[in-house]
Amino acid sequence: MNLNIVLYQPEIPQNTGNIARTCVLTNSKLHLIKPLGFEINEKQVKRAGLDYWKDLDLEIHESYDDFMKKYGDKKIYLSTTHAEAHFDEICFQEGDFIMFGRETCGVPEEVHKENIGFRIPMIKSSTRSLNLSNTVAIVAYEALRQIGFPNMK
Amino acid sequence: MNLNIVLYQPEIPQNTGNIARTCVLTNSKLHLIKPLGFEINEKQVKRAGLDYWKDLDLEIHESYDDFMKKYGDKKIYLSTTHAEAHFDEICFQEGDFIMFGRETCGVPEEVHKENIGFRIPMIKSSTRSLNLSNTVAIVAYEALRQIGFPNMK
Repeated sequence: MNLNIVLYQPEIPQNTGNIARTCVLTNSKLHLIKPLGFEINEKQVKRAGLDYWKDLDLEIHESYDDFMKKYGDKKIYLSTTHAEAHFDEICFQEGDFIMFGRETCGVPEEVHKENIGFRIPMIKSSTRSLNLSNTVAIVAYEALRQIGFPNMK
Repeated sequence: MNLNIVLYQPEIPQNTGNIARTCVLTNSKLHLIKPLGFEINEKQVKRAGLDYWKDLDLEIHESYDDFMKKYGDKKIYLSTTHAEAHFDEICFQEGDFIMFGRETCGVPEEVHKENIGFRIPMIKSSTRSLNLSNTVAIVAYEALRQIGFPNMK
């Protein structure tokens, strides 16, 4: 397994669907921290045409506290507009955890404090952010580039 | 302007919408080569909630031939599963053109021949590809990383 991608309370099912696809194609594990803004069941997955869902390495966590109880001793990075470091300045390693906040409002202060933040550069006048699934793809591929695209061709 | 992102006959409006957002946030120009799988007009843009569309530097080309007549002398890279070179092995420069094929079937042979191909690594067993807007985001940010994120923060 290459990376652990963690979504903190994702709200938009299409984003999570696209991120799941990126995880399958990069041999990464997807962690979803509840509450989610959508339901995940066989019917919904089928309706959304997520034919790769069966190949996904997925772990669902009942809460952020539950997640931290299990993985809080790991290196966990956080994508946030409040950090100074650019994402490509992080030195990623295989198995690292990379967390992404809610589409509308990121993560609470507590989550900021407990993890290592990085930002994705955007134009200076930007008030909007990149789409969440694009953000995950950009950071995941930078991490994969650094670790040499293991078992990828 | 940092990059020229070129979509060859894009089919799915949500992808083009997300790619437009990436272009606005990276100070890149978006080129769309017709025919498109959707209409672009004020009503559609408003309905899709693309509030950043007014900030987009957009050029629409009637055909691939029209596009090549105007820009065929520029350095044009092509994202394709048929290339050997990885996207991070390309040496990108400011103003480069980066082209992406249709969601369902890429680009015709002629377009392959005329441009410089690169691929995005995926797991060896993959039969699916990454989502188009994710693909664009990954490559655009690798190019921007190489050229030092000009006028971005």
